[in-house]
Amino acid sequence: MINTLYLPELREMLVDNDQEGLRDFCAVLHPARVAEFMEGLSAEETWGVINAADPDKRAEIFGYLADEKQVRIVETTGRAEATQLVVDLPADDRADLLSDVDEQVVEEILPLMPQEDRRELLRIWEYPEGSAGALMTTEVARLSESLTVREAMETICRKATSHETVYYNYIVDSEDHLRGLISARQLITHFLEPDKPITDLMQRDVVSVLATDDQELVAEKVAKYDFIAIPVVDHQHRLLGIITHDDIIDVMREEATEDAHLSVGVGPLDQGYLETHWYALAWKRGVWLTVLFFGALLTIFALHSYETSLNAAPWLVLFLPLVISSGGNTGNQSATLVITAMTNGELKVTDWLRVMRRELVMGLCLGGLLAMFGYLCALIVSHFSGLVDPIDGGIVLPTALEATVVPITLLCVALCGALCGGLLPLLFKGMGLDPALMSNPFVAGIVDIAGIVIYMTVALSMLQVAG
Amino acid sequence: MINTLYLPELREMLVDNDQEGLRDFCAVLHPARVAEFMEGLSAEETWGVINAADPDKRAEIFGYLADEKQVRIVETTGRAEATQLVVDLPADDRADLLSDVDEQVVEEILPLMPQEDRRELLRIWEYPEGSAGALMTTEVARLSESLTVREAMETICRKATSHETVYYNYIVDSEDHLRGLISARQLITHFLEPDKPITDLMQRDVVSVLATDDQELVAEKVAKYDFIAIPVVDHQHRLLGIITHDDIIDVMREEATEDAHLSVGVGPLDQGYLETHWYALAWKRGVWLTVLFFGALLTIFALHSYETSLNAAPWLVLFLPLVISSGGNTGNQSATLVITAMTNGELKVTDWLRVMRRELVMGLCLGGLLAMFGYLCALIVSHFSGLVDPIDGGIVLPTALEATVVPITLLCVALCGALCGGLLPLLFKGMGLDPALMSNPFVAGIVDIAGIVIYMTVALSMLQVAG
Repeated sequence: MINTLYLPELREMLVDNDQEGLRDFCAVLHPARVAEFMEGLSAEETWGVINAADPDKRAEIFGYLADEKQVRIVETTGRAEATQLVVDLPADDRADLLSDVDEQVVEEILPLMPQEDRRELLRIWEYPEGSAGALMTTEVARLSESLTVREAMETICRKATSHETVYYNYIVDSEDHLRGLISARQLITHFLEPDKPITDLMQRDVVSVLATDDQELVAEKVAKYDFIAIPVVDHQHRLLGIITHDDIIDVMREEATEDAHLSVGVGPLDQGYLETHWYALAWKRGVWLTVLFFGALLTIFALHSYETSLNAAPWLVLFLPLVISSGGNTGNQSATLVITAMTNGELKVTDWLRVMRRELVMGLCLGGLLAMFGYLCALIVSHFSGLVDPIDGGIVLPTALEATVVPITLLCVALCGALCGGLLPLLFKGMGLDPALMSNPFVAGIVDIAGIVIYMTVALSMLQVAG
Repeated sequence: MINTLYLPELREMLVDNDQEGLRDFCAVLHPARVAEFMEGLSAEETWGVINAADPDKRAEIFGYLADEKQVRIVETTGRAEATQLVVDLPADDRADLLSDVDEQVVEEILPLMPQEDRRELLRIWEYPEGSAGALMTTEVARLSESLTVREAMETICRKATSHETVYYNYIVDSEDHLRGLISARQLITHFLEPDKPITDLMQRDVVSVLATDDQELVAEKVAKYDFIAIPVVDHQHRLLGIITHDDIIDVMREEATEDAHLSVGVGPLDQGYLETHWYALAWKRGVWLTVLFFGALLTIFALHSYETSLNAAPWLVLFLPLVISSGGNTGNQSATLVITAMTNGELKVTDWLRVMRRELVMGLCLGGLLAMFGYLCALIVSHFSGLVDPIDGGIVLPTALEATVVPITLLCVALCGALCGGLLPLLFKGMGLDPALMSNPFVAGIVDIAGIVIYMTVALSMLQVAG
């Protein structure tokens, strides 16, 4: 829902070229709110508004605009203005933005940027997407080991506006090796002891990540230690940059979305659902649907090879979708429970015996429950078997004894679903693959085939007994 | 995996009663690491170690222990020591912990707590689980409107150790109404202008949440505005407490897990997968499995009412699981894409027309793809139709013309799956229900039934043409 509260006033101010009014609008509210109120404006109008703001405010508000609008503004405004805007952004956001902008425009902007910023940009671009390096900002507060509390505070205070956070300050030696961490909290707590050396206060056991580490690991560490930011180092333990809590929250959201998509066989999307081009979306979905389709082909052969049972008791077909879906549902529950427990770090591959015991109990309980309901339904259906005349070509319904095929099958299928769903993700993880690959549609596919085999085998032996 | 690196040394120090060694161990490492290294110790041993630490450190380390170990320590140590430990915890963690501890123990501890802490505890307990009030800590830095930068820094510096965060400081009037926010960053930036009144610097447009707001809304706001903390107010806009970034990360993880579970029909669990008692788990899974089972019963009636088609062409059964699973898979993809887009705030109910257009295109593309593969398979199967003698009781295979039933059905089923999957979550959201309720198993259930109806209807009309 677009917030239209301020749109008429903003448009009027733009027409009147009321620079002062626009600047006030940008200054008074939180930058995220300013961006929110401009959602209904075109890229050109948005630029008209933020162009009136102070450069710092402009960059802040720009950072909260939707990605496409940011790209459009950079591509359509003058190169000099676009360069200034880009340079004012934090280094990590800058790198993200420019990788979406038209290459021709980037080539024109790059030479206009200060040399240091350009180098930094190229350095960040070297790290693959999804790594700590690609996520970090290089604007980090570095302090030398020789400072006192007062000197440290003065240093931070001079540079406060250019750093992404001033709350964690890293102490490095002359070669940029990470030596320690001092928080703004520690500095403030010792505000009344200005001559204390910061090396007396600093924390030496600093938890850090490598630039090549996966962003999922970064999120895990920050969540575990309750950090506001985490330093990124190279293999020589030299400080390269930091990743801040807001980027971590974005990563967590991204990973949760990716896991949800993978769990139904949709490859990771680079953009949102509505922004992704329809043929990109069709491709990411089509690939997995095709794989699942060819897996499901096995059900044709399974059914074909049991044609004796099917011919002897055509009523079996009536319960086929029910049996298959019950197994699939139970399997999906187990798979998702095990995958989320692994994602949250509660469950390791070595716990497989506990998972097996647990799913055995679950399979028996849930299978027993479904078997009970299933037998009731089968009995109701069998009740009508006396009423239907088999000569007229209708399906012959089962007798009460024959109907026991349904509950026995449901019990076995639920048990099979629970065990496959619980153990296959662990097996995948153990083989070094993403356990989410072995989730819902795959577990359901495997249980489908197993369900048919179980159903037909049970039917064959029961009908021999009954016959 | 338990880290056993320090276990022998720790146990030796405990036996030797080496208080100094234990204190050093607790002091040198990050509290989260100390807790990690003690994972292999019993609750009694853990208490032995942290009891040697300084009270502040002890509370910090205690906060990183596993929940069950925390509960066990409080229940088994002396009441006076347990009370001291509990009092040293942040107010929100204290409330969480004591709601898990044995009631008898809590009743003995409560009278030993300072009156103020006890009142605070009872106040937090008044808010329902999952609300902002239950999540907040009341230990927030309050500043009065009359202070200067220097006075504010001195105030914060005196109270720094007792507050959850010193990075956001809230300015309140004499009746505790929230007036503004000043960050430690702003104070540090104006460190060289000590006599400036903080009202000149403070941000007046403070984004806050109500104590009764849902925790999902809190997480959304913090993620959107990139906050380190968000203030919690009552209906009169009086400051009650704050919620900090680390709690938000926990909430996001919790909500992502809950959504994943709901998407396969597992009710929200209070504990982890391995900790939940088996009958609680069986209940949370069984309820939904039963609902899905009774939904799936409709497939029996659907199949039964199309017995004419089934009798005329028994080979239709061979393709039944394939047709059903293709529709279900397409539907699940659409449902999950739409639900995650809504969770991430990219998609609103009012976008239904865009979703419908998009899923129409997806359904046609993906359905076309599956139809192509399906027709190939059906042709291969029909190739053998001449080779099988129908007299011997085997299933009569389809002719090439009859086989067109399969691709036509696949196209229709994929289209139906995409549209149901895309629109049903929006419909549920529009009706004020949780869209995740209308996710995978339900969409699959509906598409199962629709798939059977489509398959049989197409078969009936095609076979009349072919016959």
